[in-house]
Amino acid sequence: MGMVGGGRGAFIGGVHRMAALLDGQIELVCGAFSSDPKKSKLSGKDFYLPANRVYKNYEEMILREKELPEGERMDFVSIVTPNHVHFGPAKFALQHGFHVICDKPLSFNTAEAKELVKLVKKTKLTFALTHNYTGYPLVKQAKMMVKKGDIGTIRKVVVEYPQGWLTTRLEATNQKQAAWRTDPKRSGAAGAMGDIGTHAENLAEYITGLKISSLCADLNAMVKGRKLDDDGNVLLRFNNGANGILFASQIAAGEENALRIRIYGTKAGLEWAQMEPNTLLVKWLDKPVEIFRTGGGNLYPEAAAHTRIPAGHPEGYLEAFANIYRNFALNIDAKIRGKKPNPMYDFPTVEDGLRGMRFIDKVVASGKSKQKWVKF
Amino acid sequence: MGMVGGGRGAFIGGVHRMAALLDGQIELVCGAFSSDPKKSKLSGKDFYLPANRVYKNYEEMILREKELPEGERMDFVSIVTPNHVHFGPAKFALQHGFHVICDKPLSFNTAEAKELVKLVKKTKLTFALTHNYTGYPLVKQAKMMVKKGDIGTIRKVVVEYPQGWLTTRLEATNQKQAAWRTDPKRSGAAGAMGDIGTHAENLAEYITGLKISSLCADLNAMVKGRKLDDDGNVLLRFNNGANGILFASQIAAGEENALRIRIYGTKAGLEWAQMEPNTLLVKWLDKPVEIFRTGGGNLYPEAAAHTRIPAGHPEGYLEAFANIYRNFALNIDAKIRGKKPNPMYDFPTVEDGLRGMRFIDKVVASGKSKQKWVKF
Amino acid sequence: MGMVGGGRGAFIGGVHRMAALLDGQIELVCGAFSSDPKKSKLSGKDFYLPANRVYKNYEEMILREKELPEGERMDFVSIVTPNHVHFGPAKFALQHGFHVICDKPLSFNTAEAKELVKLVKKTKLTFALTHNYTGYPLVKQAKMMVKKGDIGTIRKVVVEYPQGWLTTRLEATNQKQAAWRTDPKRSGAAGAMGDIGTHAENLAEYITGLKISSLCADLNAMVKGRKLDDDGNVLLRFNNGANGILFASQIAAGEENALRIRIYGTKAGLEWAQMEPNTLLVKWLDKPVEIFRTGGGNLYPEAAAHTRIPAGHPEGYLEAFANIYRNFALNIDAKIRGKKPNPMYDFPTVEDGLRGMRFIDKVVASGKSKQKWVKF
Amino acid sequence: MGMVGGGRGAFIGGVHRMAALLDGQIELVCGAFSSDPKKSKLSGKDFYLPANRVYKNYEEMILREKELPEGERMDFVSIVTPNHVHFGPAKFALQHGFHVICDKPLSFNTAEAKELVKLVKKTKLTFALTHNYTGYPLVKQAKMMVKKGDIGTIRKVVVEYPQGWLTTRLEATNQKQAAWRTDPKRSGAAGAMGDIGTHAENLAEYITGLKISSLCADLNAMVKGRKLDDDGNVLLRFNNGANGILFASQIAAGEENALRIRIYGTKAGLEWAQMEPNTLLVKWLDKPVEIFRTGGGNLYPEAAAHTRIPAGHPEGYLEAFANIYRNFALNIDAKIRGKKPNPMYDFPTVEDGLRGMRFIDKVVASGKSKQKWVKF
Repeated sequence: MGMVGGGRGAFIGGVHRMAALLDGQIELVCGAFSSDPKKSKLSGKDFYLPANRVYKNYEEMILREKELPEGERMDFVSIVTPNHVHFGPAKFALQHGFHVICDKPLSFNTAEAKELVKLVKKTKLTFALTHNYTGYPLVKQAKMMVKKGDIGTIRKVVVEYPQGWLTTRLEATNQKQAAWRTDPKRSGAAGAMGDIGTHAENLAEYITGLKISSLCADLNAMVKGRKLDDDGNVLLRFNNGANGILFASQIAAGEENALRIRIYGTKAGLEWAQMEPNTLLVKWLDKPVEIFRTGGGNLYPEAAAHTRIPAGHPEGYLEAFANIYRNFALNIDAKIRGKKPNPMYDFPTVEDGLRGMRFIDKVVASGKSKQKWVKF
Repeated sequence: MGMVGGGRGAFIGGVHRMAALLDGQIELVCGAFSSDPKKSKLSGKDFYLPANRVYKNYEEMILREKELPEGERMDFVSIVTPNHVHFGPAKFALQHGFHVICDKPLSFNTAEAKELVKLVKKTKLTFALTHNYTGYPLVKQAKMMVKKGDIGTIRKVVVEYPQGWLTTRLEATNQKQAAWRTDPKRSGAAGAMGDIGTHAENLAEYITGLKISSLCADLNAMVKGRKLDDDGNVLLRFNNGANGILFASQIAAGEENALRIRIYGTKAGLEWAQMEPNTLLVKWLDKPVEIFRTGGGNLYPEAAAHTRIPAGHPEGYLEAFANIYRNFALNIDAKIRGKKPNPMYDFPTVEDGLRGMRFIDKVVASGKSKQKWVKF
Repeated sequence: MGMVGGGRGAFIGGVHRMAALLDGQIELVCGAFSSDPKKSKLSGKDFYLPANRVYKNYEEMILREKELPEGERMDFVSIVTPNHVHFGPAKFALQHGFHVICDKPLSFNTAEAKELVKLVKKTKLTFALTHNYTGYPLVKQAKMMVKKGDIGTIRKVVVEYPQGWLTTRLEATNQKQAAWRTDPKRSGAAGAMGDIGTHAENLAEYITGLKISSLCADLNAMVKGRKLDDDGNVLLRFNNGANGILFASQIAAGEENALRIRIYGTKAGLEWAQMEPNTLLVKWLDKPVEIFRTGGGNLYPEAAAHTRIPAGHPEGYLEAFANIYRNFALNIDAKIRGKKPNPMYDFPTVEDGLRGMRFIDKVVASGKSKQKWVKF
Repeated sequence: MGMVGGGRGAFIGGVHRMAALLDGQIELVCGAFSSDPKKSKLSGKDFYLPANRVYKNYEEMILREKELPEGERMDFVSIVTPNHVHFGPAKFALQHGFHVICDKPLSFNTAEAKELVKLVKKTKLTFALTHNYTGYPLVKQAKMMVKKGDIGTIRKVVVEYPQGWLTTRLEATNQKQAAWRTDPKRSGAAGAMGDIGTHAENLAEYITGLKISSLCADLNAMVKGRKLDDDGNVLLRFNNGANGILFASQIAAGEENALRIRIYGTKAGLEWAQMEPNTLLVKWLDKPVEIFRTGGGNLYPEAAAHTRIPAGHPEGYLEAFANIYRNFALNIDAKIRGKKPNPMYDFPTVEDGLRGMRFIDKVVASGKSKQKWVKF
């Protein structure tokens, strides 16, 4: 794999590298790690790369790698830059025949997203978006329990993603993460809703198999001087008639990364929380609540296939993230061998990315509207 | 105390009796326990009352007790009937000089509520409404922490009250509780929002000291054939600029009685859940999360005053309910002695009840409106 | 009921009164509340008792009450004094025909306990010991699950009771509870083992239906200058071959009242913790862990019979304690009516109290022994 | 790194590989993955190794690799075989100049362990033992809090390690893990005590900085026909006068991998549980309980240095295991550069391994003894 972004001082780049390396199936062979070529070089050294595989920019990387013999050249590009630098390298990589795995949200705006969808369709290359939370084994279990009808017809979904790290005006200090995420020029039309609200939207639709059909949003910039929303509450309606709530906040003082979803069906409720990801509560109407556990013997094969160690040995964020990389690699591998990829090893796609961008558009529009419901 | 309602087969009547008796400050001396005089008689026997203190109806009870000498006659009336039978006995009791403690919501509609507010003001009698959840010691602690500025300025409130007991059409069976609560003629304009949404509204305003200034509601009857909402999601705005979410549901399959509130300020977040009521999480921005505990040595006097046993000896729903009764009794006692009641021993009032009725009106109106925001 | 002890400044007396009153089945009609007659008088006033029913001492109370007509006189004596003052009033009450409910441990030493057992047998009066933790609904459920074979043959029991309140030398201050509990003249042969270790022993034997057959104890007085154990660890062997651990500590800094038991059978494990008493974890070998809940629809009748309110409305320590009083009262009531008491409404007996006293003897002996095992 | 053991069908080998690869600092370059050379070859292919770096046995691997030029040859040997095959490859590797990282327990018996200690001392090579639980960030935090005196003088330690996977006679089926772990010829003198009891012992001594000075053990083979202990309870005395309990069980039905430790000092108690490893409870005497969290801003540098991602992104077993590998690699790297290794990056050593072997000897001896205490 060749990486775009993720040099010294970056956060998510390191996560992608660890996730890629964990299973011994993927090697980092080259990169353009920074818009600053000097920093890129130093970062390359950190990763034990030979100097000639550390490039000045993504264009150079893609063009040069393309010329290398198969087996030596990178198999795919991993894009870990801020939002406004997703589209450029993704497009360029696809145009030159490289598979792409890209951090979320897919792009800076919906127009870019649509173009990427077309390009993926045209090139038939593999494109993965790291909505990593869907990589957790018990998220797969929840999805399967819904699919198999275990909890009946879904009536209500409550998905929430409170964080507290932007409670103060952190961007006024030199905090790099805060700076670009609160900047409309680099983050896009939304702040918290783009950064974490899209994770919540993706998770809800992934597990339920439903689509949000309309929404009513109240977006807020609670910290004075902030240009993008740092908090938002959204009423939801789903295409099967279910209702729901989504909220995302980065000013929820004292919260870490508390993504949580509850789904209520006619037979049972499900509850999963990212901060204790190895537990899935199944709340039956007529039986005691059951605790499903990562690695437990009662999981659907789709869930079991995303676990590496026995029950009671906690798996976390990096393992879930690694599942996206592993499945992406298996997909490419199947294509290379001319086989049909196993649908069990799924991952978020460019279409999911487009849907996320449209979600951003819709919540922003609804946030400004005086009408209650906005169609989605 | 004399009780209206709460005979054999009732639910909340028994709760009121246990709550009243717990501290040895209140005795049940008479009652009109049922609209069926025979049932009332039998119920009176259950409670070891002499036959002459068990009355055919509340009018008889109030008129006869009034004639008894002080010291022997009841000191106040406890009303534990379904919603549509709150107003009658409450009004009659007040008109004849008796203090009243009444189950929530205050009345069948807002007009009745307003009349009761006037009557209480006029008679200067004590009126308590059993929004019992505010009786928990750690709810008092949370209120005090807000009041003292410990968590800074409030920015966001998330209050929720999911239950699952009406997931199926229970009212189609002979279940008494389900029958009247889903019946517009006995319950009022709202179902779940009246029954439990008002608890959530009351709790949020009680702890924060804020008032909801506008709201946007999505009310639903998710079970086919049900006439009143059994589920609802509400966006909130508070009078200090904070935003919020309130949801209440009785079709949240597998949930018991999961009232929970989270409050985020500029310095810390608070979290309290009714089902584990002896724990209050305080999530500081710059310090580890602290676990405040019922009976712990770190509580404000207002919280400590509502605990009966040392930390680690769990106190529950009945104890919280008993705090309402105890404080109501202390208030009456202070009045009798010509003293000023200690504000520490507070309880929900008739004004809180009116506010709850107006909340019902507003969410019902908003639920039908195409406009986003309804003023409150 | 007439009470011995429990006047102003006492702790457990108030608990007994609330427990007795909760269900409206028992009235406090008289008492000898303190060894100081003046304090006794004042306490009587606190409880709204007529002066002539507040006695100088228990002898007076028992003799005078005996002369009152049936219906007016107390039905039983409740003893809530420190350990060294259990035997006297218990014996005197039994000798004069009164049923007795007594705080634990049963007596100051085993000789007294044996005498009480004989006296109860002879008089056929009802005697209850308030090992209150067995009054929790889910403790009953656990007992029934064992009895019905749900968890298979028991192999291991881990019961623990850590508290932290004696971490410092609290008895050196004027703290009344600490003073008598650490004093060999008032507490008996053991400190923590008598005060809370006996609760642990009682709980383990109650739920499992097994008997401890031998033990190996390490008792410690960890705080300098303390004369009785404030901490102890005990290896257990049960009469069916199961092994176990019991520990009790009052120097476990930061712990509140963390009685907890885990029982492992050949089919499943059980876990119950007093501080979250409304949850019983059932850890199946081949199924997900199940969460049984107080008031849930899946409980044995024996458990359901000890719950007052629906699931999700937490019941606590006082409710469990009240179950002992309620069952004691039902037993007396059945006797009065010449009926056989329903075994479902059980309570700890004088024999359980003797067993607790023998447990104290054995752990103290073992603590001093160089041999590993002491027979029990 | 070159690996001994860990071929197809193995469990812990995969864990070691993931742990080694995660940080991009270590590469798997060769191995002797099985006693069956054919299986070894196939396993090598699984790991994308060239055929000439997959060896028939560890002797061949070590001798051949030694002849390869620096930079190409493996830097160290990772031993992931069953207990009885630790000593051979460890000794051979050390004798030929290779650093060693070895699974626990160190060896088959104490004599082997002593020889390895001597050899490490003599060769000055780096030797790490994967008592991986000490790699968790919050275990480091607990250790530092003890060291800095935050919790005062330690008085009591409760460490437990219940598992349920050997509740039935799993070794009678073809389960590979169960087969060798219950076999005295491959596992050594102890079963559960060797397999997991040593983890508990290591964790307790690591965090507290204390040494167990005497112990009293009750070891049991609860499943019929099992030759080694599958369960054991141990009373502990520490060299500072503290007391303790250690229990380890593999017949605790329904338990996953529930290693947990509680430490009580004169100022506070600590509680950490492996299954929720990102939370450390600090139970203060006079303040609310605090929840320390992995990645939180309040940790000692020694803890913070073992975290890869921000708070709220759960880290698990593999990350903790990877910390051992990372620190081992940093130690070797420092040696290569002629620098002093940073003590912050610590890992369990061969001496810890010897101590574990002696612990096994002592608990086995105590288990057979009629005397209470055995010196350690």
